[in-house]
Amino acid sequence: MANSKWEYVKQFERPDQLLPNTWIVVRIDGRGFTKFANKYAFEKPNDKRALDLMNEAAKLVMTELPELIIAYGISDEYSFVFHKTCKLFERRESKLVTTIVSTFTSYYIFLWSKYFPDKPLSPPLPSFDGRVVCYPSVSNLRDYMSWRQADCHINNLYNTTFWALILQGGMNNQQAEQALLGTVSSEKNELLFSKFGINYNNEPEIYKKGSVIFRDYELVEPGSHNVAEEADNLGEPVEQSKTQLEKEKKKRAKAKVVIAYLDIIKDEFWDKRPWILSGKPGRIPKEV
Amino acid sequence: MANSKWEYVKQFERPDQLLPNTWIVVRIDGRGFTKFANKYAFEKPNDKRALDLMNEAAKLVMTELPELIIAYGISDEYSFVFHKTCKLFERRESKLVTTIVSTFTSYYIFLWSKYFPDKPLSPPLPSFDGRVVCYPSVSNLRDYMSWRQADCHINNLYNTTFWALILQGGMNNQQAEQALLGTVSSEKNELLFSKFGINYNNEPEIYKKGSVIFRDYELVEPGSHNVAEEADNLGEPVEQSKTQLEKEKKKRAKAKVVIAYLDIIKDEFWDKRPWILSGKPGRIPKEV
Amino acid sequence: MANSKWEYVKQFERPDQLLPNTWIVVRIDGRGFTKFANKYAFEKPNDKRALDLMNEAAKLVMTELPELIIAYGISDEYSFVFHKTCKLFERRESKLVTTIVSTFTSYYIFLWSKYFPDKPLSPPLPSFDGRVVCYPSVSNLRDYMSWRQADCHINNLYNTTFWALILQGGMNNQQAEQALLGTVSSEKNELLFSKFGINYNNEPEIYKKGSVIFRDYELVEPGSHNVAEEADNLGEPVEQSKTQLEKEKKKRAKAKVVIAYLDIIKDEFWDKRPWILSGKPGRIPKEV
Amino acid sequence: MANSKWEYVKQFERPDQLLPNTWIVVRIDGRGFTKFANKYAFEKPNDKRALDLMNEAAKLVMTELPELIIAYGISDEYSFVFHKTCKLFERRESKLVTTIVSTFTSYYIFLWSKYFPDKPLSPPLPSFDGRVVCYPSVSNLRDYMSWRQADCHINNLYNTTFWALILQGGMNNQQAEQALLGTVSSEKNELLFSKFGINYNNEPEIYKKGSVIFRDYELVEPGSHNVAEEADNLGEPVEQSKTQLEKEKKKRAKAKVVIAYLDIIKDEFWDKRPWILSGKPGRIPKEV
Repeated sequence: MANSKWEYVKQFERPDQLLPNTWIVVRIDGRGFTKFANKYAFEKPNDKRALDLMNEAAKLVMTELPELIIAYGISDEYSFVFHKTCKLFERRESKLVTTIVSTFTSYYIFLWSKYFPDKPLSPPLPSFDGRVVCYPSVSNLRDYMSWRQADCHINNLYNTTFWALILQGGMNNQQAEQALLGTVSSEKNELLFSKFGINYNNEPEIYKKGSVIFRDYELVEPGSHNVAEEADNLGEPVEQSKTQLEKEKKKRAKAKVVIAYLDIIKDEFWDKRPWILSGKPGRIPKEV
Repeated sequence: MANSKWEYVKQFERPDQLLPNTWIVVRIDGRGFTKFANKYAFEKPNDKRALDLMNEAAKLVMTELPELIIAYGISDEYSFVFHKTCKLFERRESKLVTTIVSTFTSYYIFLWSKYFPDKPLSPPLPSFDGRVVCYPSVSNLRDYMSWRQADCHINNLYNTTFWALILQGGMNNQQAEQALLGTVSSEKNELLFSKFGINYNNEPEIYKKGSVIFRDYELVEPGSHNVAEEADNLGEPVEQSKTQLEKEKKKRAKAKVVIAYLDIIKDEFWDKRPWILSGKPGRIPKEV
Repeated sequence: MANSKWEYVKQFERPDQLLPNTWIVVRIDGRGFTKFANKYAFEKPNDKRALDLMNEAAKLVMTELPELIIAYGISDEYSFVFHKTCKLFERRESKLVTTIVSTFTSYYIFLWSKYFPDKPLSPPLPSFDGRVVCYPSVSNLRDYMSWRQADCHINNLYNTTFWALILQGGMNNQQAEQALLGTVSSEKNELLFSKFGINYNNEPEIYKKGSVIFRDYELVEPGSHNVAEEADNLGEPVEQSKTQLEKEKKKRAKAKVVIAYLDIIKDEFWDKRPWILSGKPGRIPKEV
Repeated sequence: MANSKWEYVKQFERPDQLLPNTWIVVRIDGRGFTKFANKYAFEKPNDKRALDLMNEAAKLVMTELPELIIAYGISDEYSFVFHKTCKLFERRESKLVTTIVSTFTSYYIFLWSKYFPDKPLSPPLPSFDGRVVCYPSVSNLRDYMSWRQADCHINNLYNTTFWALILQGGMNNQQAEQALLGTVSSEKNELLFSKFGINYNNEPEIYKKGSVIFRDYELVEPGSHNVAEEADNLGEPVEQSKTQLEKEKKKRAKAKVVIAYLDIIKDEFWDKRPWILSGKPGRIPKEV
């Protein structure tokens, strides 16, 4: 059969390789998760099991794709970051974003019953959309991460107060919304404490900070590296011997992928973990 | 907290709306499915359960996204087509491709145990990547569909012969490959028949034709419409009243989504189902 | 010298081939032409010499690029159209738009002294920017052309009335603007006639219709072709023998490129000149 | 007239804003300049007048677009660089590339008679195409500039030897090509010296180094700035007061735009002129 007659249609495919030497962020979002959260009666303002499920799915994505250097999640959203030297799938945008979205979805469905054994899934099922953004400099990437974590804080403080007003204060949604209109952070903190005896600072870190996932190596003394500058100076291509690359791959595969609830806005997090921005595996911590 | 300081990073997001008035094809592919098929011992050359699973997942994608007009699947691949007037997600490429990939993956994992009750999934899980291609004319779209169905035929004839040589003929992979090198279709047909008594024409349609999914309305007399021309003539925007749109939406929701194993290369399939290319729902068949 | 060390920077170039089987429109615009028109005291509301200069430059662009099928100009703007089967520069967007902009600019400067012998150019010189838009169907392309010609009409009627109020009516700019605020076409026509004795219909066609440039062949009887449909049906690739292509190229080169002031909104223009949409050269008219 | 009916065609325009925080390089090239150079009998291997014409046109482009930080030219090619913080035309690719191509072409035609008073231009006229490439880091940008200057050296050494073999050595083109096949730089140098008494080092700098154009301020002591790092650290947006921006604009407008033939591969050029990479105007040198 003459397939060639129709094969010309391949010419309509557009190349979509991302600009080299830029940090690739893939952000995924739950589709229609407000409705979905209601269907499965997620706890308010945060459902710990739902977050743990997101985190385990994201951790498994990180584990399957060693090219990822860090991931950060809040609510039904997760950002995955590829190092700027990453050449996975020749940096093709569609491949990168769909692979992450699909792998994440796959684990989310697969793990659901572990976290919600009492609530079997039924159609329509949860799903996620995704998008890619490229950042040219370390400072842009750090600002992206800070933006997400600041959003986490803002949203969580709002939601914590909002649901306290409803669940403990007996307000309905409109009343709670009205009560919070125009309030600043300090006023929400005050309101939580004075009305409900809640010290926001004592809220669980996972709610206040969101979740950050990375490969774990031995921490280094801050100040001993200048990783941001080194990363920015990196041109293309970083030539490495096959042996060197294999070695690094093995090291990376051995590294434990960890979930933590840490401040990623300040320098400390990054300074102590130079491997994240350098893309070079660190030293595997000795087992105790 | 001053979120605005970091919010500038949103400016790095690139718009990705697809060219209006073009047919949008989203093709998804199983990632590493050769290995995956081995892990779960899929039957050769075709595993009926695996195909049925693909088909049910695709059918549910079609059902959830009424903007889809047709889908076509072979092996671990599925193509989903949006009508050229489709405005879903403002035609944003990332949204469209990730939504389909994620919804499909979701159902694939969810339905797995229905088709493979004896083979529980374990990590690494199956996943799919996807890409978008736009086609300007009906003739381009039809050629795309023909290309995929021709591929189905070519691959299935090859695989059927290849696995007959191995499973019934006792060859190993290399010998079977060697035996088929340079053979044309008629020779493979002949070989199947003379050596193994297999009449390729009698093979199941699902293997020979692949699976096509569409909404089912009353068939029309071929020749009574000129849908291709009408579709090509469609400019933008097709203005319709809200009432009209609502009506169509309801009709579409009522329509049964069916899976069939039909020739989609010849005109007949399209002529009898003008609603596929027109994008207008047809007449709901009366229940018998 | 080791050039290879730096050659990696070529990888940052992005491919920019336009979607196949779409009509390519390159529209160029004078940069800062309001100021430029004042500097050289262009006549109001239309400067015939300036338009003739635009037209001759555009005609020479058409002559140098036989892949262009039609061009249409108003004021300091020109649209050039490549046939949807055009493969010039592998359809690379940058190449196409910069070649047209540069060739046009080149002739504009070169021919300036022919049209304005009394007004030598001095820096800053006139220049043009350009952009590319792709249209999937004949109906979209025709609508684009209609849009530009309708704009021509709307602007020219406004400008004719505006400048009559100023030059003959003694108003200043603000007064004229005020006088026209909210008026519809018929009111402007009436105003022109009653106040200044101007019958707008008798205004020169070049001002009312803009300028259309195309290759001239023998006109055909409208209705004898169905070019729009044929053009839409065209898939890719249109395979032709080298001999055939050479023949067509020669015919095209022989064809006279003409400037006319015609209605391109109605079907007549296109029906009589099927070669424009078919991309196939017509019959060279016999010299009388 | 109902223009709105057709205005929908504007929706087919695609946004093309370049990734923020990247260095924008616009490279233009003469179209068919081998043929063009023959038509006007350019001198071989270098025509000083032709290069001076290129340089003056480029200098005027730099002068008209103060957002440009540097330009570099060899033969019939010129690269123009916008600072990574540049917001001109909202960073729209088409606007940027066509404006530069058109302005350059405009001056090239306009100035032609100054450099070639004895050779009036005739159609087909010279024209240029252009393309845009974005570079994320200073190191990428420097490597791009080094790549072009290395190319200049390689080509000029080759051409100088090639044309010596022909013009002084009496060879024809094929013989000269053959003689140079596989030779390295040192061999070409040796050949030039031993056969023709030409010391390549004494060749004019404009031929060996190409031409670099920049705004001239007081040189600074190398080592007193760390501009590359500062530039890489720049995020977006660099907020400045209107007054500050106006001040800088004035300073920039006052600065002399100079053409020089310098090494731009080594650090020295950049270290002494920190304003190029910082984008901040330097100190205007005192007139003597």
